[in-house]
Amino acid sequence: MRLASAESRSTEYDEEQFELSEDGHLLQPKVPYTTTYKDGASIDWLQADMAERNRQQTLRSEAGVRGILSPALDATRGWLVVILTGMGVGIAGAWLDVLVKWLGDLREGRCAYGFFYNQVACCSGIDPGEVCHDWQSWSTYLHFSSIFGSSLLQSLVYVALAIAFAASASALVVAYAPYAFHTGIPEIKAILGGYVLDAFLSPWTLLIKALGLALAVASGLSLGKEGPLVHVSCCLALLLSRCFKQFRNNEASKRRILAAAAAAGVSVAFGSPLGGVLFGLEELDTFSNESEVMWKGFVASAIAAVTLQWANPFGTAKLVLFQVTFVDDAWRAFELVPWFFLGITGGVLGSFLIKLNVKITVYRRNSIIADWPILEVVCVTAVTAAVSYLVVFARAQSSELVANLFQECDPSKGDYHGLCNPTAAGQNIFLLLLTAAMKFLFTAWTFGMMIPAGIFLPTIAIGACLGRAVGLITQSVYRLYPMAAVFLSCPPDPSIRCISPGFYAVIGAAGMLGGVTRMTISLVVILFELTGALSHVLPIMIVVMTAKWVGDALGTDGIYATWISMHRYPWLPPVDFKDTKKATGESIMKSVDRLVKIEDGAITVGELEHLLTRFGHSGFPVVTGPDLVGYVSREKLSAFLDTLPRSPSPSSRICLFSTHQRPSRSRPDINVTTDSSSKTTRPLSQTSSPSSRSPDVIETPTPTSEPQLATETEDTIDFSSTLDTTTLQLRKQVPRELVVAMFQKMNLREILFTEGGRLDGMVTKRDIAELLTSHFDHAAALHVPLSSHK
Amino acid sequence: MRLASAESRSTEYDEEQFELSEDGHLLQPKVPYTTTYKDGASIDWLQADMAERNRQQTLRSEAGVRGILSPALDATRGWLVVILTGMGVGIAGAWLDVLVKWLGDLREGRCAYGFFYNQVACCSGIDPGEVCHDWQSWSTYLHFSSIFGSSLLQSLVYVALAIAFAASASALVVAYAPYAFHTGIPEIKAILGGYVLDAFLSPWTLLIKALGLALAVASGLSLGKEGPLVHVSCCLALLLSRCFKQFRNNEASKRRILAAAAAAGVSVAFGSPLGGVLFGLEELDTFSNESEVMWKGFVASAIAAVTLQWANPFGTAKLVLFQVTFVDDAWRAFELVPWFFLGITGGVLGSFLIKLNVKITVYRRNSIIADWPILEVVCVTAVTAAVSYLVVFARAQSSELVANLFQECDPSKGDYHGLCNPTAAGQNIFLLLLTAAMKFLFTAWTFGMMIPAGIFLPTIAIGACLGRAVGLITQSVYRLYPMAAVFLSCPPDPSIRCISPGFYAVIGAAGMLGGVTRMTISLVVILFELTGALSHVLPIMIVVMTAKWVGDALGTDGIYATWISMHRYPWLPPVDFKDTKKATGESIMKSVDRLVKIEDGAITVGELEHLLTRFGHSGFPVVTGPDLVGYVSREKLSAFLDTLPRSPSPSSRICLFSTHQRPSRSRPDINVTTDSSSKTTRPLSQTSSPSSRSPDVIETPTPTSEPQLATETEDTIDFSSTLDTTTLQLRKQVPRELVVAMFQKMNLREILFTEGGRLDGMVTKRDIAELLTSHFDHAAALHVPLSSHK
Repeated sequence: MRLASAESRSTEYDEEQFELSEDGHLLQPKVPYTTTYKDGASIDWLQADMAERNRQQTLRSEAGVRGILSPALDATRGWLVVILTGMGVGIAGAWLDVLVKWLGDLREGRCAYGFFYNQVACCSGIDPGEVCHDWQSWSTYLHFSSIFGSSLLQSLVYVALAIAFAASASALVVAYAPYAFHTGIPEIKAILGGYVLDAFLSPWTLLIKALGLALAVASGLSLGKEGPLVHVSCCLALLLSRCFKQFRNNEASKRRILAAAAAAGVSVAFGSPLGGVLFGLEELDTFSNESEVMWKGFVASAIAAVTLQWANPFGTAKLVLFQVTFVDDAWRAFELVPWFFLGITGGVLGSFLIKLNVKITVYRRNSIIADWPILEVVCVTAVTAAVSYLVVFARAQSSELVANLFQECDPSKGDYHGLCNPTAAGQNIFLLLLTAAMKFLFTAWTFGMMIPAGIFLPTIAIGACLGRAVGLITQSVYRLYPMAAVFLSCPPDPSIRCISPGFYAVIGAAGMLGGVTRMTISLVVILFELTGALSHVLPIMIVVMTAKWVGDALGTDGIYATWISMHRYPWLPPVDFKDTKKATGESIMKSVDRLVKIEDGAITVGELEHLLTRFGHSGFPVVTGPDLVGYVSREKLSAFLDTLPRSPSPSSRICLFSTHQRPSRSRPDINVTTDSSSKTTRPLSQTSSPSSRSPDVIETPTPTSEPQLATETEDTIDFSSTLDTTTLQLRKQVPRELVVAMFQKMNLREILFTEGGRLDGMVTKRDIAELLTSHFDHAAALHVPLSSHK
Repeated sequence: MRLASAESRSTEYDEEQFELSEDGHLLQPKVPYTTTYKDGASIDWLQADMAERNRQQTLRSEAGVRGILSPALDATRGWLVVILTGMGVGIAGAWLDVLVKWLGDLREGRCAYGFFYNQVACCSGIDPGEVCHDWQSWSTYLHFSSIFGSSLLQSLVYVALAIAFAASASALVVAYAPYAFHTGIPEIKAILGGYVLDAFLSPWTLLIKALGLALAVASGLSLGKEGPLVHVSCCLALLLSRCFKQFRNNEASKRRILAAAAAAGVSVAFGSPLGGVLFGLEELDTFSNESEVMWKGFVASAIAAVTLQWANPFGTAKLVLFQVTFVDDAWRAFELVPWFFLGITGGVLGSFLIKLNVKITVYRRNSIIADWPILEVVCVTAVTAAVSYLVVFARAQSSELVANLFQECDPSKGDYHGLCNPTAAGQNIFLLLLTAAMKFLFTAWTFGMMIPAGIFLPTIAIGACLGRAVGLITQSVYRLYPMAAVFLSCPPDPSIRCISPGFYAVIGAAGMLGGVTRMTISLVVILFELTGALSHVLPIMIVVMTAKWVGDALGTDGIYATWISMHRYPWLPPVDFKDTKKATGESIMKSVDRLVKIEDGAITVGELEHLLTRFGHSGFPVVTGPDLVGYVSREKLSAFLDTLPRSPSPSSRICLFSTHQRPSRSRPDINVTTDSSSKTTRPLSQTSSPSSRSPDVIETPTPTSEPQLATETEDTIDFSSTLDTTTLQLRKQVPRELVVAMFQKMNLREILFTEGGRLDGMVTKRDIAELLTSHFDHAAALHVPLSSHK
């Protein structure tokens, strides 16, 4: 009998909860437009999308011309933000390049006729081969004549300026915007997945990250600008989108704009517009089946690249950063052996780099270093600068090194530090391996310090050094035994190059990147947009694949996923989750007796407020006995409670979620009949929206302000507008893999397990995230390293 | 009271339906491994994945070394199929190129010293500039001396051979493999989405399609080899996968292999390994969130490309088919105007081409032409060959034309039919536009005839002609007014090229392809893998975007989606479905009173057989009164009915799906207790599998073979092993957009709408497909054109 009544009841409150359209179909519940989340929460995509639908429906249903113009204007705003973000990021990228070049050159000297010229600008207009006298090294400028003195001065200025740059960057970050440290990609992945972390994208963070990034890169630390540029791009997009209420009030719409901005960031960072789109597709996993978001990413990427090309920071009018020209387009089958070796090495070293980085991060977090972040940066910079100054390949900016390692030897173009000298092959191989080892250690330490730092460029540099070394080794072997059986496919004329060490450097970079980031398609595209090595796309693909395979087999996630695990962000990796045991939903759900539930009609406002304070859950199931009534989210509950005036005692008022259960009273608390006569399709004017309905309720006088027993009070408040009855319900026998896939693909925040109307349990996004990252040793990693700096 | 019992009942049968693991969690239902679908059905992905999980679990749980070796061997088989497919497709592609080149050259002449040499092979070893005497035109070979006579003979042989090739291709298709006509991409999209059409991928189809394709391409009809190569690739993969039971018995696993094969097909068709992967990602929409499938596609693509490069059919050892070398890497802002124009033109013409093609297809289907498919091909070939022979640009193979149109003018390389002659610009523009118009009409007619035919190459040819014409126009304007304000950004020295008409041809092709296929990222990647035009990726991106936008705005789908709509395949386009009305699931569901339901324990075997014959539905909900018991799929029901012996009268036996309802009898029909004592994790040995359980049941003697009233019989059969209780259940108030998204993202076949255990309605994949293609005029398109040829 009880069950039968639950049956009829649920039908009843649905009729009230939903609007009825003209053709008699039940429509969506009336959700308030704005939902405010606190930092650390996960957004409810379904509710946000529903709110956005309702908003657009309202726009379209406006009378006359406004019904056409408003939606058009609305769409234009989104595109405007995307276009402006693209342009802004393009300019920011160009400005960053100019600033870094100038600061970097400043470490070696200054321009005689203008302090603010970098070396290239200072020496422009000079014939090739002529010595540039306008660019003065610090020893020349300060008139140091002795060789020893001037060398010492040069190195001291070099190290001192490096420390000054890094220290200012770190100080800015620590003092003004702790979220501006690190790469930012893990957080952006989490945010795009629905995590709320508003402080991470604040205007202050934008400013500090952009400025700090320039200083950090110029300091010569082992870090790159790529990830931080994506962060800067997202900050900019958020700043621009705040001008429009439609993004401010809807977390889902906001995230769609951010996804496009991230693509623009990658586009500028690598000069790779297509790579930007694919990065969004593969690594951020945001565009799946949402063609509109992909379009915005496409446009943002293209506009950012056009802007960068137009701003032309390098004076080359080219997007391709490390242009390579391979003399011979063909490659030989025997070369697959060293390339596979580079792929395997990339996988192993990448995996090792990640593990080492985690160990260092945990050590930093638990030791005294955590209290002295700026001092740490200063020390690491001093060591990096001093050691790098000694090794010729490490002294230059990483980007300059990579550009030269990717280049084939060409007598007409000059020889970078004797790299093309065949007699110095042994020495070069040693120096390259030494540089790779140094950069490996520096990178593992640097990535995670309180300074903006990307991992891409250092990884490319390590891989390029390794690859070039392997290329030189292969070349040396060929020169020693040109007639060996394996080299039969080489041209008989030894003056024609058979092995291209420059391409081995590209392959090495591809392998190392594959091992560290575990990206695949976007990586291949970025790499050949970086190098223009289109004819060699096959070896690059093979090596990236090998590296990812080896890395995955060694049991680590990519560096970004690892950092997400360390931070314990509720983010679902887009992996195929395979159960070894055939488990069901029941094995991951929190069963009904362990859930914090709200008993409908038996809880007072006071108890509800206590519940919200006591428990941090994102929402609570509402039940009547064992039966599920619906689900209320924390955000709606808080918003609704805020609308209630403080005066009557909270414990005297009963919360009623399913309206039919309301005790019979002389006056109905809402005049449903009169209101529904003037029913329109504009949800805002509906009676059930909190603002219009609640005053109706609380008019009922409550003379006594003392706490009463809940059962004694007659005073009930209608909470039905906060109740969500469309939360996904499954049976607990559903396979666990399917539950995980539902969370991954449908962007859910929670699933309720019911059977025949009875609540069995519940599983949240955070439970799934814990399940998917359960192989990561959370206990050892402790907790968010950020917390100590806030 | 009744509801309360339903409650306890559902718990009860679940306990029997599911295995219990050691830790007390309920596990998945025991599904038989093999499910046989008939052509026209949609597969049940969830059931197939569950079966695959169970199978792998069984393998892993084998004792000792076998528990390690069996899963490894199992995975190896999948990779083996992928690798062999890749190699096979690479060889098939190379062989096709050689055959087409030879057949194509045969239309103009023959090699003096060997009939089977093509022109290039025949003339190899001759110095550039020297006349090749070994290659004889037919008039030379037959000693025709008069100019008029030899011209006439040449053109007659040209047309006659074209007709012979096309007629044989068409005859092969009509006689042996009607599914080998057309491109095959629409069917592959539908199959990969879960549609069952086994005849489409038969070995016969493979053979006829490969052979017919070579003949069709050589005939000079306006068609390409790209789509059909994907079809060939999938046929090959299916043939190879049939060697292994794991793919033969599981439709989902089979489709994952097919997806990889499709990527390999694209890789070979365009020489674009990365494009193949992205085509799978974007157009086939199969890799989403399934990294294993993406990996297999990656590997298959790479291996196919390596094989093709190794086989080296063009003798260039290059994958890039239409290598372009732009003298000047930079492009100027004013060029965006003609490029946008090309993008818009591409969108408009692409959309018009699709509409025209649909009109012609419908006309063909409804007119007498449908009865004379070979004659139609002969006539169209005769017209195409005759008209093409007259226009210089149309005479050559489309691929040769495109290669030359993409090429910049370079005095050292010779002038293709006077294309680079500045004084003949007007004439060239006219000829190019004429060629484009001709190819447009021919393509619209050819695509859909009974002959293997791809749409890619013709589209590229049309676009390249248009683009080159626009490039020539722009160049002419520049030559007339070199000092005009818009050309200020051109270099002052007029001897330096400012406008590259060859690149305009690439842009034109990009725009036209965007308009016809509506692909985006994969198209851009394929285009620059085709041309090597990496530095121009931005304009290509912009034009593809513009064309797609314009095309979409004109209200048509891409050509493949349009053909799927014409065929009414149950395929869900991966579009964002946006409701203009805020409808709920109720608006698309078939409500409970219109559903064909099975009343549990009140239907006889005879009635059930009648139900299966009478209704074509893929499954039926099982109910008790208004309450849902579960869902049975047609396939499981048929398979189970087939195991029952024929002897006792079918109408005398009652089908019982929920086991607890079994009338109490002296002997339980299954000894559950004894069986469950020897419980293992190997589902095949479980008592509930049809083969082991059913003999137990039918042992019960039924002395009378005459029909009895269902209510009078005591003889019941346990159908519980066919019952699926985990079918997704939603409340009908869920927004319709969410229902559609669930079908799209979770690969569902049906959703039941329930509330508190009561069945409200049901919606199937076919309903959703109809909803998503409701803008297509199905009534005008009638039905599958194939049916007349079967």
